[in-house]
Amino acid sequence: MKQKRISDFGVRIGVLPTGKLNKITDVPGVTVGHCTVRDEKHNTGVTVIMPSEDNIFLNKMTASVYVHNGFGKTAGTLQIEELGTLETPIALTNTLNVGKVSDAVVEYTICRCKEEGTDVVSVNSVVGECNDCRTNDIADRAVSKEHVFSAIGSACADFEEGGVGAGAGTKCYGLKGGIGSASRIVSLGGKDYTVGVIVQSNYGKHEDLRIDGKKISEDDHSSRMGECDVGSIMVILACDVPLTSRQLKRVIKRCSVGIARCGSYIGHGSGEVFIGFSTSNRFSSSDDDIVSISCVKESKLDILFRAAGEATEEAILNSMVCAEELHAFNGTLLKSLKDIL
Amino acid sequence: MKQKRISDFGVRIGVLPTGKLNKITDVPGVTVGHCTVRDEKHNTGVTVIMPSEDNIFLNKMTASVYVHNGFGKTAGTLQIEELGTLETPIALTNTLNVGKVSDAVVEYTICRCKEEGTDVVSVNSVVGECNDCRTNDIADRAVSKEHVFSAIGSACADFEEGGVGAGAGTKCYGLKGGIGSASRIVSLGGKDYTVGVIVQSNYGKHEDLRIDGKKISEDDHSSRMGECDVGSIMVILACDVPLTSRQLKRVIKRCSVGIARCGSYIGHGSGEVFIGFSTSNRFSSSDDDIVSISCVKESKLDILFRAAGEATEEAILNSMVCAEELHAFNGTLLKSLKDIL
Amino acid sequence: MKQKRISDFGVRIGVLPTGKLNKITDVPGVTVGHCTVRDEKHNTGVTVIMPSEDNIFLNKMTASVYVHNGFGKTAGTLQIEELGTLETPIALTNTLNVGKVSDAVVEYTICRCKEEGTDVVSVNSVVGECNDCRTNDIADRAVSKEHVFSAIGSACADFEEGGVGAGAGTKCYGLKGGIGSASRIVSLGGKDYTVGVIVQSNYGKHEDLRIDGKKISEDDHSSRMGECDVGSIMVILACDVPLTSRQLKRVIKRCSVGIARCGSYIGHGSGEVFIGFSTSNRFSSSDDDIVSISCVKESKLDILFRAAGEATEEAILNSMVCAEELHAFNGTLLKSLKDIL
Amino acid sequence: MKQKRISDFGVRIGVLPTGKLNKITDVPGVTVGHCTVRDEKHNTGVTVIMPSEDNIFLNKMTASVYVHNGFGKTAGTLQIEELGTLETPIALTNTLNVGKVSDAVVEYTICRCKEEGTDVVSVNSVVGECNDCRTNDIADRAVSKEHVFSAIGSACADFEEGGVGAGAGTKCYGLKGGIGSASRIVSLGGKDYTVGVIVQSNYGKHEDLRIDGKKISEDDHSSRMGECDVGSIMVILACDVPLTSRQLKRVIKRCSVGIARCGSYIGHGSGEVFIGFSTSNRFSSSDDDIVSISCVKESKLDILFRAAGEATEEAILNSMVCAEELHAFNGTLLKSLKDIL
Repeated sequence: MKQKRISDFGVRIGVLPTGKLNKITDVPGVTVGHCTVRDEKHNTGVTVIMPSEDNIFLNKMTASVYVHNGFGKTAGTLQIEELGTLETPIALTNTLNVGKVSDAVVEYTICRCKEEGTDVVSVNSVVGECNDCRTNDIADRAVSKEHVFSAIGSACADFEEGGVGAGAGTKCYGLKGGIGSASRIVSLGGKDYTVGVIVQSNYGKHEDLRIDGKKISEDDHSSRMGECDVGSIMVILACDVPLTSRQLKRVIKRCSVGIARCGSYIGHGSGEVFIGFSTSNRFSSSDDDIVSISCVKESKLDILFRAAGEATEEAILNSMVCAEELHAFNGTLLKSLKDIL
Repeated sequence: MKQKRISDFGVRIGVLPTGKLNKITDVPGVTVGHCTVRDEKHNTGVTVIMPSEDNIFLNKMTASVYVHNGFGKTAGTLQIEELGTLETPIALTNTLNVGKVSDAVVEYTICRCKEEGTDVVSVNSVVGECNDCRTNDIADRAVSKEHVFSAIGSACADFEEGGVGAGAGTKCYGLKGGIGSASRIVSLGGKDYTVGVIVQSNYGKHEDLRIDGKKISEDDHSSRMGECDVGSIMVILACDVPLTSRQLKRVIKRCSVGIARCGSYIGHGSGEVFIGFSTSNRFSSSDDDIVSISCVKESKLDILFRAAGEATEEAILNSMVCAEELHAFNGTLLKSLKDIL
Repeated sequence: MKQKRISDFGVRIGVLPTGKLNKITDVPGVTVGHCTVRDEKHNTGVTVIMPSEDNIFLNKMTASVYVHNGFGKTAGTLQIEELGTLETPIALTNTLNVGKVSDAVVEYTICRCKEEGTDVVSVNSVVGECNDCRTNDIADRAVSKEHVFSAIGSACADFEEGGVGAGAGTKCYGLKGGIGSASRIVSLGGKDYTVGVIVQSNYGKHEDLRIDGKKISEDDHSSRMGECDVGSIMVILACDVPLTSRQLKRVIKRCSVGIARCGSYIGHGSGEVFIGFSTSNRFSSSDDDIVSISCVKESKLDILFRAAGEATEEAILNSMVCAEELHAFNGTLLKSLKDIL
Repeated sequence: MKQKRISDFGVRIGVLPTGKLNKITDVPGVTVGHCTVRDEKHNTGVTVIMPSEDNIFLNKMTASVYVHNGFGKTAGTLQIEELGTLETPIALTNTLNVGKVSDAVVEYTICRCKEEGTDVVSVNSVVGECNDCRTNDIADRAVSKEHVFSAIGSACADFEEGGVGAGAGTKCYGLKGGIGSASRIVSLGGKDYTVGVIVQSNYGKHEDLRIDGKKISEDDHSSRMGECDVGSIMVILACDVPLTSRQLKRVIKRCSVGIARCGSYIGHGSGEVFIGFSTSNRFSSSDDDIVSISCVKESKLDILFRAAGEATEEAILNSMVCAEELHAFNGTLLKSLKDIL
């Protein structure tokens, strides 16, 4: 059964055309898999973004990181910043599970490369996180290696959104958050390219939420000014546009626009980390000393900036509207946006 | 005659209380002066933010810079980034005039210090800019030293907004931009503090403009997708809250929220630079080896983040609604937002 | 039996006085523990720097990170960069073990806080690494949780240097590298303060090595120009000087001077990450909204810069001269600097 | 008459071969011009690095900036950081003259483009600086527009080193500093490329100076520990190797190695700014939407890192050894290194 998304409620975000699925997987080669961990004490899990079918460790991709608010534990950013490349899938999970999930991504890479005849002695595994402690007994670090492998194994194009995988236990603008996605088509040099975004949403105060600019709550904040905007949001952007890592950083920085449009002021406690990769320009150890790459003419980046902002805004709304209401073991009740609209 | 501001049109941005004037000058000690250069070929000028009545060079202030989009020529950011202090007034002008205005600020500082008995051999003058070439013959660099001194001399609390000073020739969301300001009051530790913002607005496409979330134009972009969002926006934030430069950088980063709320996707050609200073914690050459400073408890920064976002959004709208329609020498016509509302 | 250090060979690095032990543990409260993993296939381990006897999670310290060459997997830098604080011990290990060791530090923090009555739902564990794959079967990730707890349990002031803990399998300038340390005493405001450094050394080509400026090898490089300077160096700096995180970043950046003095050109493959913390100015959740801190007058930082450079240079030499020759399972032989001098 | 350089004193820095002139101008197309301002009160001037014979504004070059110590006033870094390109010559001058010299570079660019039929409305002029106040009445800002144009007009390949142009009044390691240069040849993909460096040296304490590792002074510092290492050093690196701006930043960061080798601890007051450009991969407004560029395979950067460090170290020594002793108007005497060797 197809999930109802924000566009099914008549909300149109931005002006650019969307991809076929309107998901990050519209970028050719990209797939997404989930493994949800849900029991009497846990609502958590892992979501894995697979950048390609082939082995990315042996054919690295251009990548970039932008830290909008660094109150977070995302692993692997340092090397992306220095070398501008991605060499593993990107996993999302809960805050305290980053170490275990990072180790699992290392193991996956070692094993896959061994199968293909390469011994790996250095891997930069990339793992993002949100804090789902309001509905999940997070100190248990319930996501294990097997869950990560299961998420990788289930990766597909038409993946589920809402309260699944790394979004199982998240809360967004006082409602149930989760995993959401969207995509945009842009035209450059007479050719169509795709920009796709996936978010793990776990931030914002209910009174601040705006849907395409319109406020949802009548609350005037006066009673809650002291409350923190805790949480986080991870944004992963994929594209097939050829870009340098510097250009890609400029593009993913615009994901912040989508977050601001939904109403947040980027709270102190909200770790907001954006990671981007391009499936164009692969790099391997057999490359010549001087390699030839392509990239977008700088002044033509504008349309990608708009695509990043629009897709992020819509992905956040999809993460909420696709999620079911959640009653957690500790009594917490998170309503769904779809029941409010 | 009092200028009509966006709140006079019934638009209320955010939830925090405003300062008395609802301007950056609500921060005690801060004043602003303009000098407008307007003739048959020029619509340009200079605006100077004076951080204090006393000599800031001898009593430096905590400061920070955040570069949201670095397609710009702002001078003085490198040293602020390293030392975390401001030692001159901040001047705003047109893009090609930064060198001359920077030299004028150096001269002002040398002269003022000489009067007070100090020989100056090093000054980090801070000058921001927007490109007003659509209404100004910018290659002339028409702003001279005398204009800068005149702006400094005219600095006051209840300064004019709209198409004056450095805002004389700017264009914002397809309409007349200019200088705008707003302030917010925040309570910390039982005491009220003020956060004030001033902007020089010169960015955005008309179809993107939103006022408190609502679109103004019916245009669907289809005919103009290729046009660049050229321009720029400078945001200067002042406060009397004690902050370290790291904390202040976190605060000014949230000015980006105000810009996104007004509808922009942070265009490639739009230089967006934010500079913040706090009038608390002054630093002088006679300090002891170990100095004592105060700062906000990190988790209490949230209210300042909100203040920065709200004040920036309102300051942008004030910069537009206070500006008169402009017919430039080259035939360019920039309408005023107030005539549209 | 006391280990012979570089000063025992008549080499005096720099001009500042050293602390009592001439180790990072001269900074009051700081201790260091090792656990070495050595068997037929492994030469690896973990070294833990304990910043204080009390619970650092409940009383955070000012901290900073400087990435000199980001080809590395150090965990926890993102949050230090944003918040300027350290909330866990710092662990060093091998490259592929970062995930498991990071998870162990999380578990240690959860357990310790639980004992003291606090439930932890978010921890930023800090783990640095070097790649010891030339003497260690690194893909096994042989360092387990128990090894980390053992290293923490054994932490003391007069810790061993050389090929122990995280330095068990490292290689430095073609010789056996390892763990090394040094300290300097600086005087500010009439009071003595201590700057201490510990390194995990694993970088450099033999022909490049210099001891206090003098070359060791006669080799002219001509035959080896194509070889990479693989490896890495982690530098942890502790001090009891009151500093802001911005100032601390300025201080630790000078650790690069010590590395350059030893002869390296900062190779592409050499991840070089510096982490600093100050035991002054603790931060807790019970702080007032406005807190008072102290810091060094900016122009007085010079002596700390010199201390950081000197201590790093000496710590690197100590890491090498304290290490025993190593014959690894795969036939690799790493000689000791002490046998060459 | 040919100036004696450090290699003429039997000092060989590093292992890589040098270019024909052993100057930055070994990079094809690069020239350097000086204008010295020397009278009864002034020892200052301007040095201009011309990246190409053709108009760089119309055919921009890949560029990068690395700020080693940001206590400085260098103009133009913000845009290089964002866009990764250089569009003007690079001028060096004294600290307080940056505004005037920056304006002159703007005027030069406007005029040259007008001659070639292009109206310029935005220019990012790049100007570095050192503080020569110990021998120059710096508050006068004695370098005028005409001096800048004269320096540009005199640009050539075999330019003078030592106390000329922007190096007329500088002091380095207690001796006369100035302008110095060096180059290295590197081989990649079977082809030779050139890396060239030019420095404006104005930093360091005499007791710290080392020539190829050897100390020059017997002084043990004890009497001068309180003195600041004031001054600055600007390093400009040119190459004809194809690099992205991210890669170029990695390369120029290694200029810090050359500075450390000469003995400095990167003093608080010493602004150390490095700017690099590559004459490969030019960018123009007539480019296609998608452009093709080339760049070095990442793991092959090592040889460029070594070249950057070696050339910087030698350039610093050349700047000193080529300079004549200077008796300044205020009684300051700066001896020359050549008279000491």
